[in-house]
Amino acid sequence: MAEYRLVARSHKEDPTVIQLGDQSIGAQELCIIAGPCAVETEEQIFEIAKNISELGIKFIRGGAYKPRTSPYSFQGLKKEGLNLLGKVSREFGLKVVTEVMDTSLLEQVYDYADILQVGSRNMMNYQFLKELGKVNKPVLLKRGMSATIEEWLLAAEYIMLNGNEQIILCERGIRTFDTSLRNTMDIAAISLVKELSHLPVIADPSQGSGKRSMVRPMSLASIAAGADGLMIEVHNQPEEALSDGFQSIYIHQLAELLPHLQKQAELVDRSILLNKRPEIA
Amino acid sequence: MAEYRLVARSHKEDPTVIQLGDQSIGAQELCIIAGPCAVETEEQIFEIAKNISELGIKFIRGGAYKPRTSPYSFQGLKKEGLNLLGKVSREFGLKVVTEVMDTSLLEQVYDYADILQVGSRNMMNYQFLKELGKVNKPVLLKRGMSATIEEWLLAAEYIMLNGNEQIILCERGIRTFDTSLRNTMDIAAISLVKELSHLPVIADPSQGSGKRSMVRPMSLASIAAGADGLMIEVHNQPEEALSDGFQSIYIHQLAELLPHLQKQAELVDRSILLNKRPEIA
Amino acid sequence: MAEYRLVARSHKEDPTVIQLGDQSIGAQELCIIAGPCAVETEEQIFEIAKNISELGIKFIRGGAYKPRTSPYSFQGLKKEGLNLLGKVSREFGLKVVTEVMDTSLLEQVYDYADILQVGSRNMMNYQFLKELGKVNKPVLLKRGMSATIEEWLLAAEYIMLNGNEQIILCERGIRTFDTSLRNTMDIAAISLVKELSHLPVIADPSQGSGKRSMVRPMSLASIAAGADGLMIEVHNQPEEALSDGFQSIYIHQLAELLPHLQKQAELVDRSILLNKRPEIA
Amino acid sequence: MAEYRLVARSHKEDPTVIQLGDQSIGAQELCIIAGPCAVETEEQIFEIAKNISELGIKFIRGGAYKPRTSPYSFQGLKKEGLNLLGKVSREFGLKVVTEVMDTSLLEQVYDYADILQVGSRNMMNYQFLKELGKVNKPVLLKRGMSATIEEWLLAAEYIMLNGNEQIILCERGIRTFDTSLRNTMDIAAISLVKELSHLPVIADPSQGSGKRSMVRPMSLASIAAGADGLMIEVHNQPEEALSDGFQSIYIHQLAELLPHLQKQAELVDRSILLNKRPEIA
Repeated sequence: MAEYRLVARSHKEDPTVIQLGDQSIGAQELCIIAGPCAVETEEQIFEIAKNISELGIKFIRGGAYKPRTSPYSFQGLKKEGLNLLGKVSREFGLKVVTEVMDTSLLEQVYDYADILQVGSRNMMNYQFLKELGKVNKPVLLKRGMSATIEEWLLAAEYIMLNGNEQIILCERGIRTFDTSLRNTMDIAAISLVKELSHLPVIADPSQGSGKRSMVRPMSLASIAAGADGLMIEVHNQPEEALSDGFQSIYIHQLAELLPHLQKQAELVDRSILLNKRPEIA
Repeated sequence: MAEYRLVARSHKEDPTVIQLGDQSIGAQELCIIAGPCAVETEEQIFEIAKNISELGIKFIRGGAYKPRTSPYSFQGLKKEGLNLLGKVSREFGLKVVTEVMDTSLLEQVYDYADILQVGSRNMMNYQFLKELGKVNKPVLLKRGMSATIEEWLLAAEYIMLNGNEQIILCERGIRTFDTSLRNTMDIAAISLVKELSHLPVIADPSQGSGKRSMVRPMSLASIAAGADGLMIEVHNQPEEALSDGFQSIYIHQLAELLPHLQKQAELVDRSILLNKRPEIA
Repeated sequence: MAEYRLVARSHKEDPTVIQLGDQSIGAQELCIIAGPCAVETEEQIFEIAKNISELGIKFIRGGAYKPRTSPYSFQGLKKEGLNLLGKVSREFGLKVVTEVMDTSLLEQVYDYADILQVGSRNMMNYQFLKELGKVNKPVLLKRGMSATIEEWLLAAEYIMLNGNEQIILCERGIRTFDTSLRNTMDIAAISLVKELSHLPVIADPSQGSGKRSMVRPMSLASIAAGADGLMIEVHNQPEEALSDGFQSIYIHQLAELLPHLQKQAELVDRSILLNKRPEIA
Repeated sequence: MAEYRLVARSHKEDPTVIQLGDQSIGAQELCIIAGPCAVETEEQIFEIAKNISELGIKFIRGGAYKPRTSPYSFQGLKKEGLNLLGKVSREFGLKVVTEVMDTSLLEQVYDYADILQVGSRNMMNYQFLKELGKVNKPVLLKRGMSATIEEWLLAAEYIMLNGNEQIILCERGIRTFDTSLRNTMDIAAISLVKELSHLPVIADPSQGSGKRSMVRPMSLASIAAGADGLMIEVHNQPEEALSDGFQSIYIHQLAELLPHLQKQAELVDRSILLNKRPEIA
């Protein structure tokens, strides 16, 4: 009855594992992607990159082109932001996850990203999804803020049908009547999509809740629900961040969080993918 | 407190009127845009164009590139669809309203459209909106299916801030918990946006309700609420339509509807923009 | 497929008309119910009653028991409020519409109300609905703020199945993601319910929008959509009202509105039920 | 800025602990409430009660009066259902959690319930909440299906302001645009309410998801998010259940789940309240 086919669990029983060098997403180990909402300065991104790298994290996130609701908000460093991501990638051996906002920016971002992020606002930009289907890099497909599970999987189908099988789904909260938090994180969607599809599913507890104190419980809950990884916003100075500082955790909070994530992962017979084992302070 | 500026009524008291040849949108006369969901065949679009033209309608709608939730659904005739729109435009003197799905298609669609439609799924594609700001043709900006009024006006602000002041807003129904109808048409949004902004606002009762029998009451209600025009899906054979036939009215229904629209317009001290006065059969 | 039976149009083709003395709801003439959100003082309710009565209005609304989100908000005059409603009813020959909040209050309110109002928050209180089914007075059943059309009709079914066929449905806005207005008025629901059911449907543009300036366009739109009447909040001093003053119109605004309602009613081959014909000032 | 006072964490720093005999809710140990959606037959409720009791569970749930969307659905055994709950309570030493649907039923249910449940549909029945404030038994207050966090806490405030401080909040899923699952479980609400209020918060993963396979991940996620307990629907023959069988787990599934709940509780420095320690089969 569902209209998606290639992405369905019934089409392919084995979970899809995405390989990036010696690292993989969707296998037994959970991936942790961390970094700021946006690349702001060379100093900022280097400090964050250095710190997360020392914690054993292998993936950095950071927006160079930022989709902002208001045209008067900081729009990202653009090309310069991509350059900085390239630099920290080389310096610290981090894989880069960054958003492509539009078909016209795909070529440019392609050169700097290890994983191409499609933002929530673009999940139904089907022409763009078709283009991403022709690319040989993994795509991280965020759920649209008002997309049903079926629409989300059909968006992935657009990519896969056009040739790209490396798709990572990302639950980032949905829009509901309740405005107590920025978004309503749909934790059950993680479990449900893991049933319906063979694709890896990660969670974004920062965007998903929009509140720093929620990042820890939502990270644990997401792993409990079966997530294959987490994308967490972290900042060296959240109170100074040019965007979304209120939902970014401090680096020391990330350090404290990792061993709990490890224990939570073990509880569901997983572990977390780090270069070294996290220690409880 | 609102973050939009240029589109605000407080910035410019007088309503924006968009001029297309001898026709205008946003002035005393309401515009009626009619046509099929998608251009399907030469025969289909010619028959519809001929019929609506004979009713005095001056704007034809029709999708050449169609954003469809499933990649397995009809995606539009693409370039060929644009060619057909160009033909009927010349043949019947109709202005063409058609969707641009992506920045990469803008140049192509630009040559055939008199009004460039931005679909609901693209309302938050800010890179694309910036490009539309550089274009010297009117943009019809559909409200995102889960966009707040503020977000909608900020999307218009992106276009206007980049130089294009010819923006027509279009209420097309929002997504809510209720699935009795395809969308929940937010009639009050029409009145509210007319208060908040100087831009013209039209309504799409076909997409807004998703049900043929709702087109008439929702058309009347939209005009009662202050809409500057209507975009109505009409088909010569709705039951054979390749997309959205269930929400398209028959041509004879459109003919019957027009005099009621005229009377409704008069009730709010407007009239409808047709080449001839509609008659009650 | 729908689970409601008795309330379905397919069960009874003819529209249900509710007779109250020489007045009727659901027939060709639309009923206008007007009055304050809450009865506040003798002076207030007498002044409002006198004024609406002079405008030819036959139904007064006013809460004696008020369901307020906060226990610290004004909860209504209770028994004293009912007494005052009784007085103005006798003095001005007005029919009283007032809310029953709970089974335990039914007996008390019954003695003062001509129409028993069930509020949005109680639409799914099925035990209460069963009790209302045993009563021989009309019930005005407001739609739950997150009730689907099917749930709303099934709530009416509870009443009818228990013996009371005098049910008036009232669309009062639903809860959505958009907070620009207090509620999202679901105008299409009016048209749809008129298709699905034989019961009369009225609209509450005051609660439905939550904003004074929306009352007029939403009243017109509701009639255009097929409503059998309107319930409008009006206050002699809205800025001093103990509840919901921001959505109450001034008495002079009501006076100005009535002739427009009359014209709108005529446009859909109806008229409005007043003791005298409204005049344009 | 929040309008609730007595229920606020800022009013009372220490968590509220509700004592029932030798058992407590809101302390270090998490409570597990299990049982069928509805009491159906003596045989059914005895078998379930016996089984959960043997697993060490101390609280049984089961509806005697059932709020059903359709009047044609099974409405519960009513008085007889209460009698059966009383019997199993005595026989197996279980505390009874059951719903009171209305003020008129309060006296009757009071005699059989150890915890009085207020259903989602009644969360805004303020007259009823006031009555519950006068009662000296704990109230389990389910979140309304479209209630904001603030409205939920204000509903609790109604009870507490009227004298009853024994309130347990229960997250049971909210209504959103997505119909893939029956409800969208708002896991973050659990964490947020624990921040905002001193009241215990439990989760209902059965109602919250509406799907059997979701009960396990949502139970783990809820504990990870800080829940003080779980209410789980379990049935001896779910496929034969008169209501909601699709979301009820089998007894053997509950047995398998308990040791995982124990481990999850330990991860957040809690344990689960059972008469005996669960064992992994």
